[in-house]
Amino acid sequence: MSSAEHGAAEHGAAGRGAAGHGAADLGLLAPGRADSAVEAATGDAAYVRALLDAEAALTRAQAAVGLAPAAAAEAVTAAARDTGRYDARDLAVRACSGGNPVIPLVDALTSAVAEQDAVAGRDAAAFVHRGATSQDILDTATMLVCSRALDTVLGDLDATAAALARLAAEHRDTPMAGRTLTQHAVPTTFGLKAAGWRGLVLDARDRLAAVRGALPAQLGGAAGTLAAFHAFAEADRREPEPGSDLGLRLLAAYAAETGLAEPVLPWHTLRTPVADLAGALAHTAGALGKVAADVLALSRTETGELAEGSGGGSSAMPHKANPVRATLIAAAARQVPALAGVLYGSLAAEDERPAGAWHAEWQPLRDALRLVGGAARDAAELTAALRVRPGRMRANLAVTGGGIVAERLAAVLGAHLGRDTAKRLLTDVSRRAAEDGTGLAEALGRALRTRHPAVADAFPAARLRELADPAAYTGSAGALVDRALSRPGTHPAAPIPQENA
Amino acid sequence: MSSAEHGAAEHGAAGRGAAGHGAADLGLLAPGRADSAVEAATGDAAYVRALLDAEAALTRAQAAVGLAPAAAAEAVTAAARDTGRYDARDLAVRACSGGNPVIPLVDALTSAVAEQDAVAGRDAAAFVHRGATSQDILDTATMLVCSRALDTVLGDLDATAAALARLAAEHRDTPMAGRTLTQHAVPTTFGLKAAGWRGLVLDARDRLAAVRGALPAQLGGAAGTLAAFHAFAEADRREPEPGSDLGLRLLAAYAAETGLAEPVLPWHTLRTPVADLAGALAHTAGALGKVAADVLALSRTETGELAEGSGGGSSAMPHKANPVRATLIAAAARQVPALAGVLYGSLAAEDERPAGAWHAEWQPLRDALRLVGGAARDAAELTAALRVRPGRMRANLAVTGGGIVAERLAAVLGAHLGRDTAKRLLTDVSRRAAEDGTGLAEALGRALRTRHPAVADAFPAARLRELADPAAYTGSAGALVDRALSRPGTHPAAPIPQENA
Amino acid sequence: MSSAEHGAAEHGAAGRGAAGHGAADLGLLAPGRADSAVEAATGDAAYVRALLDAEAALTRAQAAVGLAPAAAAEAVTAAARDTGRYDARDLAVRACSGGNPVIPLVDALTSAVAEQDAVAGRDAAAFVHRGATSQDILDTATMLVCSRALDTVLGDLDATAAALARLAAEHRDTPMAGRTLTQHAVPTTFGLKAAGWRGLVLDARDRLAAVRGALPAQLGGAAGTLAAFHAFAEADRREPEPGSDLGLRLLAAYAAETGLAEPVLPWHTLRTPVADLAGALAHTAGALGKVAADVLALSRTETGELAEGSGGGSSAMPHKANPVRATLIAAAARQVPALAGVLYGSLAAEDERPAGAWHAEWQPLRDALRLVGGAARDAAELTAALRVRPGRMRANLAVTGGGIVAERLAAVLGAHLGRDTAKRLLTDVSRRAAEDGTGLAEALGRALRTRHPAVADAFPAARLRELADPAAYTGSAGALVDRALSRPGTHPAAPIPQENA
Amino acid sequence: MSSAEHGAAEHGAAGRGAAGHGAADLGLLAPGRADSAVEAATGDAAYVRALLDAEAALTRAQAAVGLAPAAAAEAVTAAARDTGRYDARDLAVRACSGGNPVIPLVDALTSAVAEQDAVAGRDAAAFVHRGATSQDILDTATMLVCSRALDTVLGDLDATAAALARLAAEHRDTPMAGRTLTQHAVPTTFGLKAAGWRGLVLDARDRLAAVRGALPAQLGGAAGTLAAFHAFAEADRREPEPGSDLGLRLLAAYAAETGLAEPVLPWHTLRTPVADLAGALAHTAGALGKVAADVLALSRTETGELAEGSGGGSSAMPHKANPVRATLIAAAARQVPALAGVLYGSLAAEDERPAGAWHAEWQPLRDALRLVGGAARDAAELTAALRVRPGRMRANLAVTGGGIVAERLAAVLGAHLGRDTAKRLLTDVSRRAAEDGTGLAEALGRALRTRHPAVADAFPAARLRELADPAAYTGSAGALVDRALSRPGTHPAAPIPQENA
Repeated sequence: MSSAEHGAAEHGAAGRGAAGHGAADLGLLAPGRADSAVEAATGDAAYVRALLDAEAALTRAQAAVGLAPAAAAEAVTAAARDTGRYDARDLAVRACSGGNPVIPLVDALTSAVAEQDAVAGRDAAAFVHRGATSQDILDTATMLVCSRALDTVLGDLDATAAALARLAAEHRDTPMAGRTLTQHAVPTTFGLKAAGWRGLVLDARDRLAAVRGALPAQLGGAAGTLAAFHAFAEADRREPEPGSDLGLRLLAAYAAETGLAEPVLPWHTLRTPVADLAGALAHTAGALGKVAADVLALSRTETGELAEGSGGGSSAMPHKANPVRATLIAAAARQVPALAGVLYGSLAAEDERPAGAWHAEWQPLRDALRLVGGAARDAAELTAALRVRPGRMRANLAVTGGGIVAERLAAVLGAHLGRDTAKRLLTDVSRRAAEDGTGLAEALGRALRTRHPAVADAFPAARLRELADPAAYTGSAGALVDRALSRPGTHPAAPIPQENA
Repeated sequence: MSSAEHGAAEHGAAGRGAAGHGAADLGLLAPGRADSAVEAATGDAAYVRALLDAEAALTRAQAAVGLAPAAAAEAVTAAARDTGRYDARDLAVRACSGGNPVIPLVDALTSAVAEQDAVAGRDAAAFVHRGATSQDILDTATMLVCSRALDTVLGDLDATAAALARLAAEHRDTPMAGRTLTQHAVPTTFGLKAAGWRGLVLDARDRLAAVRGALPAQLGGAAGTLAAFHAFAEADRREPEPGSDLGLRLLAAYAAETGLAEPVLPWHTLRTPVADLAGALAHTAGALGKVAADVLALSRTETGELAEGSGGGSSAMPHKANPVRATLIAAAARQVPALAGVLYGSLAAEDERPAGAWHAEWQPLRDALRLVGGAARDAAELTAALRVRPGRMRANLAVTGGGIVAERLAAVLGAHLGRDTAKRLLTDVSRRAAEDGTGLAEALGRALRTRHPAVADAFPAARLRELADPAAYTGSAGALVDRALSRPGTHPAAPIPQENA
Repeated sequence: MSSAEHGAAEHGAAGRGAAGHGAADLGLLAPGRADSAVEAATGDAAYVRALLDAEAALTRAQAAVGLAPAAAAEAVTAAARDTGRYDARDLAVRACSGGNPVIPLVDALTSAVAEQDAVAGRDAAAFVHRGATSQDILDTATMLVCSRALDTVLGDLDATAAALARLAAEHRDTPMAGRTLTQHAVPTTFGLKAAGWRGLVLDARDRLAAVRGALPAQLGGAAGTLAAFHAFAEADRREPEPGSDLGLRLLAAYAAETGLAEPVLPWHTLRTPVADLAGALAHTAGALGKVAADVLALSRTETGELAEGSGGGSSAMPHKANPVRATLIAAAARQVPALAGVLYGSLAAEDERPAGAWHAEWQPLRDALRLVGGAARDAAELTAALRVRPGRMRANLAVTGGGIVAERLAAVLGAHLGRDTAKRLLTDVSRRAAEDGTGLAEALGRALRTRHPAVADAFPAARLRELADPAAYTGSAGALVDRALSRPGTHPAAPIPQENA
Repeated sequence: MSSAEHGAAEHGAAGRGAAGHGAADLGLLAPGRADSAVEAATGDAAYVRALLDAEAALTRAQAAVGLAPAAAAEAVTAAARDTGRYDARDLAVRACSGGNPVIPLVDALTSAVAEQDAVAGRDAAAFVHRGATSQDILDTATMLVCSRALDTVLGDLDATAAALARLAAEHRDTPMAGRTLTQHAVPTTFGLKAAGWRGLVLDARDRLAAVRGALPAQLGGAAGTLAAFHAFAEADRREPEPGSDLGLRLLAAYAAETGLAEPVLPWHTLRTPVADLAGALAHTAGALGKVAADVLALSRTETGELAEGSGGGSSAMPHKANPVRATLIAAAARQVPALAGVLYGSLAAEDERPAGAWHAEWQPLRDALRLVGGAARDAAELTAALRVRPGRMRANLAVTGGGIVAERLAAVLGAHLGRDTAKRLLTDVSRRAAEDGTGLAEALGRALRTRHPAVADAFPAARLRELADPAAYTGSAGALVDRALSRPGTHPAAPIPQENA
């Protein structure tokens, strides 16, 4: 008997299905997000909470425009508050026949309100979900879950960016090898690398914040015309208010009640909000994935320039300190683009509600949120505790025997000797310096005196040492760091135009 | 106690504990798989079970080759049996620091064995996980989960294929419109359509069965050399058996204990088994997705040739009978290719264990299993209860006013009148027939008599009626159905060559 | 001999490789983009043009900040102008060894300048590509190609939106069936559908325009520090200008010369611009894919509410008019999300230039541009010539025998009879009406008089006809159309924050 | 004027469009495949060739079953031979209106045959494409292109496997660090790594060969019933042969004429052949991507254990030798899974020919072929010339100061001192050895004599040196290499069951 089943048995019949079900995903295969705030904000319990919030907001909005009595709004809100009544597993199982969880949720909520009604002697239950379609509620709930989850993610991105700003400032002038196609190219600084990471994280943050700010409520009724609300007004013999459309007033009231943005149109099959989420989440996963990719490359045993603050240990191999956080971020960065692809693919949704494209959004969107949220948590931890080893960076700058400053030497000597002669000289001297262990500057001085005595005077030993010093060949790195750091960490992002949704 | 459990405790009994963790995925957003056998076979509880099975098999295999006492194997097997000791959520949370769930599981299992040891006065705990690496256990457990889950899926595919065979046989000669690029083309039969569905399902089944049969155990130790087992043999001063390598013998014994195939090499970064799963799962999702796509197209209100046996109802719209099963299958078919892409992408895994590519396999592989397993369940239900409406099929064959047999008429009349003349005549007659509601055969007869009297005699009314009858223009459909149905439904698939893994 | 080889033969030796190569992709498998403006703007010839533009701009920028003589800038610009010297196929073949096309292009450009130098007696050739890395040129050229291609795409999206605005206005009140999960739900209007399409197209357009406006130049030198430019200044014994960094001044000058935006940092491995393109292109493909999905569904032979202006014909089946444009758009919408996924995946790029992630961007980005550009062209054509059939829409509204207005009737009658009684009555009456062909209003009137005489008076025949008229149950559709159309078609989009790149 | 336009101008009007078109993709952005055999085998010219082959085979097959005169078959075959008549660019442009290239190709072929007819005085033109649909020809041509391209790919995979077999044998006992999550774990051998690469490449090869052997011809007519062939037989008043279906006989004859496999059913929307290609191509890309990932990791400047035979040079940085082949293979491995995802997604194709899913296969399939074919070429070159540096491998084994053999020492010492004591001792000694540069064996000997004198005698200096020697701790590596190499390199793969297609 599994522990879950065990728990269920102890609970008796009430535990059946429900939380104790052996089919549950409790994070066992997801160390990148387990125990994170975003995981809790996106679990089935959080969805149940948001679905109930959406239903309650709907009745309140109807009350606000005169489509329901205030008492009904209060009753539904009260019944929706007690999450304990709504068993996510039970709803999941009952969702199978109709294909979405709103149908059984409405049943359960209606029963709850009806119980209250029986005591209070009224018929608030008739106003539960009145005029709405399942998608109104599920889409709105999803936007609520996204907004709550993204607040967490944005906080972790801010923390990550702040840690990177500190690293960039501290290591503004710490030289290290710049590497291209796996090979040492020319020197750079760790400050510039960290400033670049930060810039990318802020790019992602800005996009995510813009999307977060524009998440819309959903309300359209069966086919997006809001017609049922008109029908109920008609049934109640309610006079239309002149000069304003009932449906549009309701839509505004609903958005206000949910705290979400008001869409121009119902967006049952106009999925801009989901596409925007897809893009911003994939961007964020990739931005954090860039940081992870660099941490992994620079943590390799032979390189050793970076190390995670608390690497994962290995019992059998005490020397190992695995870059676990970077590994899990890298794993997330491999998954999110594929999930985003599914979401973008669902834009092409036929009719007023598609048979498949909408349903295919639910889990991928949640999974993308969780992967990104977990990666953001891990990135905040990783960057806060990252161990930087300037000594190893300097030691590694030497391993090409001066090759890393060849570009500079070629330019400067080329002005005296001609490009081709300079290049030949450098290739030759570099090889010899590497072979006999002499410093490049010294070997070069000797070669100039022997082979190009006319030029040798222009390059005294101190000048050659300076020219051959990787730390002195970092170009605009410092100025670039300064400029990049002048970008504010939490500046309010211009909202993406979001008129339609 | 996790924060969620804390919340649960506050709620009292209603909060129903661990498995009830707020972060849990209990299937709320997955009506396509909720409550299915494959869901239970792939839940975290099932993974815990399989991880424990893998650990117990490892110690037994070591006992089999003399690397551990038989008592230790018995003790570990016994301790692994009591799943109740191992709380999936607790393991999930503790997996975060090291990045995989095997580390805390080994701790828990070692404690369990040590408790037994204290009673029995022995040191079996020292043999838990001895010489292995986390990936050995997690990969083996994953293969165990896959083999158990696939047995379920294969059963549902067999049931689906059997239902489709019945439909194909029953409707071997039921004419319906063949449609290309959304437009009526020429007639076909529902039997041929069903036979094609079955062929595709059998293709998927065969590939999945071949993969299922070749799923390998994983054992390589820290870096795939099995060296630690040699070291323990050395430490125990065990004499090597001449003529056979200890590691290879252990690998064989381990495969035998797990019931999985023996790999040629440890496959920590030779991920053929995962790639094969990816391909076969994507194939299956697509095959079922083809069935769903057709059911959806043919269920459209205006077409109405098919209907799900028990369509999902709508409370507000009593006339609606939604094709829910087909919708959920279609949703699965949209997601699995993307997950398969992540798995294929993880083939390019650096070193002896990659930092990210391996971790990125875990959830996508499980999700793909679940989506396919859920879709197979839904397909079995859908095909068992599919309502076929030959009357609507025949009515729809008429909506182009004979256009659907124009190809035949053009061929036959063309032989008499020349191709161009025949085509002009047919275009003209079809339009008139559609306008004035005359039958095409009659209109054609009149036109021939008027305009081509020399030819008219060759086409008496009965002949024209036969030529214009869609049911008489189904070509080789019947013969194709017969041939397709001669393919056995459960013939044993030739195994995919699987030497390396 | 292929036509290409034929051409090559005519050219003699000079024709080898070149455009006539048998390996060429000339659009044969891409009817969705063949012969489009975006295809021409993204072909290899266009890339060669852009690469040369980038090189010329680089030398001019160096001249602007004093790193090169003005004469060199003029010479390079002149040599870059004569595209005829640069054979794309020859460059492609020569790009294999170094892995990118800039290396052979620089060779070719240097030779061209050197030839001029020989005449003019100067050394401008030394300034070709001086200080830059291949990625500076290829990234800049790619941004130039994107900006040119996107201008075309934006024009086609504007045209599409304008056509949709006309359709929405014209059919503001044209009733049609709203469909969900393939089944008739409640009525909607074609105006609302067209307004929704337009809103989605404008969403895509706004995102694409924002990305277009922010495409940055790329310049960083070998590892993103711009150090080589400092080295050449040093070699030339140029005094640094006080108070401003040479590299930053050069970056600004380069951006100005290319007409692209100035990035905060070199973005060799900070790929926000590519990610933004990925997202906006996937969004656009999906938005157009939604239009196509609806056109395809509504064009089905049995539905027939829409038809493409000039459907693709079939020689054998004269009755067929295939929705070719919609088909090709739908095909594009299936491909672009996957390509976008590759681009998002390339964000996780190690080091200062990754070994693979960068190279993996080139073709997918171009393919996405072409697919979207072709789809936009097709959408403009499709929407300009779309045939709307209000008669078929109205006829189809009747096929559920009143079921499509059941929601309204249930609401209105429910207020008199109670919800359950009303629902039972309606189910019963609808079935009878469908069976005996009576109109729903009439059948309902009869049933009310018989079974609920007390209520019958409230529902005279005219009232029942109005209640049962689908055209009178379109809710807020008209108001929503009006509101949606008030969104301007070409309003300038707020730029996405783009500080880092 | 672009070079292409230049060429066009030289051709005069005849050159318009055609090969010289500026929109052409000539490989400029694809150094991974430019100038490869697979590129030539998959270009538009190759497709035109295959389309013509398919048409000619169709007429010959009809002649074989009596549906066409032998003279017509000869005439069509002759007209199809002269590829010079068929301009790929012209066909591409003309394909736009109908949405596929077969329509204009049939026009062109018919004209060519008619010209011959005019001379020969017969009507063979009437038999061009008679009874077929565009998809019959395009699918068949695609299978022909695939079979030709895959032969090339298989050859390169064989060469790669052979090179890897040599490397594995030669380096069977060459020790190197085994690395997991970027960190040194325990030793392995380069032989085992190369044997693993080979195993993976053979896995891919076997799958690809199985798919190659089963590629089927396509023939179904307008909707897959082969009805038109019956109609033409009827028109020709041909007596049906008793006991055998005309359509089935034609299908068999067509398969024989094309050299492709005979499908059980027409597979217009039963896309197993395409799905099988998708999976095998993604597998191959990933297998080669694994090799590339390792080469890239081991080529990093600090590691330097491997180097490409002829690395791409950098003019500015003469010390650089870029792993270009591995980079391009890695780039391919990032793209193919996404393309495979599109192909798997196209399995879910509605009706008898889908509006989009089929069209979405064309370019992704070709691109996947080209990427894999280019990667296979590069892999063959890379492995043939790979430079292995055992000296660097041995040097790197030392960088953890013995940590890499800690697992072994812990096991062996643990048997004497107890696990915990042994582990503490090792951690302490390793740190000291690393600090003062003593060898680990020596430091350990000293520590044992001081702290554990009772145990010290069991570990004389020579024994400690052997225990601390990474080369002596490679476990079953040698035996595994031997076993892996016994797998034959070109053994004939069991065909994947392919009954339906």
